[in-house]
Amino acid sequence: MIISRAEHNQYFIGIDGGASKCRARLVSSDFSLRGEGLAGPANPLHGIEEAQEAIVASTAAALKDAGLPESDMKNLIAGVGLAGVNLPTCSAAMSNWDHPFKKMFLTTDLHVACIGAHQGADGAVIIVGTGSCGISCVKGKTHILGAHGFPHGDKASGAWLGLEGLKITLLALDGVLEHSYLTDRIMQHLGCKTDLEVVEKMSRVSSRVYAKLAPLVFEAADHDDVQAQAILREAADYIKAISDKLLDSNPPRLSMIGGLTERMMRWLDKDVAARFSPPLDPPEVGAVYYAHEELFGYHEAV
Amino acid sequence: MIISRAEHNQYFIGIDGGASKCRARLVSSDFSLRGEGLAGPANPLHGIEEAQEAIVASTAAALKDAGLPESDMKNLIAGVGLAGVNLPTCSAAMSNWDHPFKKMFLTTDLHVACIGAHQGADGAVIIVGTGSCGISCVKGKTHILGAHGFPHGDKASGAWLGLEGLKITLLALDGVLEHSYLTDRIMQHLGCKTDLEVVEKMSRVSSRVYAKLAPLVFEAADHDDVQAQAILREAADYIKAISDKLLDSNPPRLSMIGGLTERMMRWLDKDVAARFSPPLDPPEVGAVYYAHEELFGYHEAV
Repeated sequence: MIISRAEHNQYFIGIDGGASKCRARLVSSDFSLRGEGLAGPANPLHGIEEAQEAIVASTAAALKDAGLPESDMKNLIAGVGLAGVNLPTCSAAMSNWDHPFKKMFLTTDLHVACIGAHQGADGAVIIVGTGSCGISCVKGKTHILGAHGFPHGDKASGAWLGLEGLKITLLALDGVLEHSYLTDRIMQHLGCKTDLEVVEKMSRVSSRVYAKLAPLVFEAADHDDVQAQAILREAADYIKAISDKLLDSNPPRLSMIGGLTERMMRWLDKDVAARFSPPLDPPEVGAVYYAHEELFGYHEAV
Repeated sequence: MIISRAEHNQYFIGIDGGASKCRARLVSSDFSLRGEGLAGPANPLHGIEEAQEAIVASTAAALKDAGLPESDMKNLIAGVGLAGVNLPTCSAAMSNWDHPFKKMFLTTDLHVACIGAHQGADGAVIIVGTGSCGISCVKGKTHILGAHGFPHGDKASGAWLGLEGLKITLLALDGVLEHSYLTDRIMQHLGCKTDLEVVEKMSRVSSRVYAKLAPLVFEAADHDDVQAQAILREAADYIKAISDKLLDSNPPRLSMIGGLTERMMRWLDKDVAARFSPPLDPPEVGAVYYAHEELFGYHEAV
């Protein structure tokens, strides 16, 4: 638990911005929730302006949710965790932003996820959503695994699962593989009858569009689809390998977060699943803690 | 062999446009070579205007090569084989083009490749370049396999080989796999020292950029790199599966073309490699034959 040292009337906004959406949480000086906001994608790697607009839009929504005027934005201290800012060019572009806050503290979405999951204490996190990655924060040292992006990285993520499912569907449409529950469901979901329709629909789409197919892979695996099960076993092997590496730094706690957490957990071996503890707070709260730590120095865990 | 029925002074331009480049061949009425031209990418799926500009630029270069003025373009009959025009939207956009030729006959790059490889006779072709696909043209029926695009399709292509090589490199940088000849060569080629540098360099690049890594996969496999060999065995299995499907339609001849042909052939089992006959003419000559066939009706093979 983190004890606030903020002035009585100082509000914080915690931002968690990723490839799919941007979440904002408005808290008062004692970290109690005042309002929440949601906006579109906020990965500066996919568009700096889009990311900045999403941060502002989600903050405005949180202020509205709290019954506060949008003009209060200039009084907020913002903790912002963003995808992509581990890359120097992204980080530089975001740091040069003429932002609307009183102060803004910027770090990666992974970092605020880890801070949130362990309430500022040392720990590690694996994130399995549209993308995938691992991070450990131990004794002031941060180590990131994955976070390599799509299609070359993000193994075991929603985008990766969807891509693997789509590959199999296209091979089946060519008669190279047998059609199956998985390929039928993907064609049904896409509303396509031929490979040409699929190719036209999936030409140059973002990783988010692939990630929308991921739930069908889990569903097909539950219906004994052999290909879907093979995809999920490969994903589970990767999660195990990443957790092995993260545990090398001896984090006191390890959590998994992201939209696919529950479903992916079921595919891990029991001893691997047992490594994970539930996250204590969501990333947007981690972002508030981050801003607080940057303002007042490292927290005291009590 | 195709016998020309064109008027004595009628010149043809044959165009083969793909994701990497656009080749043009200018021939006189007896199909003898007068000039060649080369321009940039001409995949209308990646940009209609870019494709049209590449067609014009390669034609202009071929006219110049022949010592003819650019104003002669309006007198040419063009056969144009283009990637992407198997998709209805691409085909429609290209058909509406106010093109600079006397007449233009448009079909897929795969179709002109097949016509060229077998000099207009029935046959099948597997293309392994930046992308991958198969096509058979037998008894007036055309059947296409693959041509699904990157990253969900194009298995065994240069882009696919490069992507698989890059995935392994990123896993090695995370310590999930061992570093190897392949991963060292890819890092050297990219001029990168860390995974962050790789991610920044490869963020949202085109399939052509991935394809540039493909030669390193072949090179590493020749140096007994186990991962590179596994990638190439998977590619070879796919080529075999596609050739099995193409042979279902009983084409008299089967050829392989594209920039990776020679290297890929060495990874096929002997009985699979023996299925392939050398292509007789390149795709841009196939494009000339196509225009001629469309003008004068189906050729007589003699």
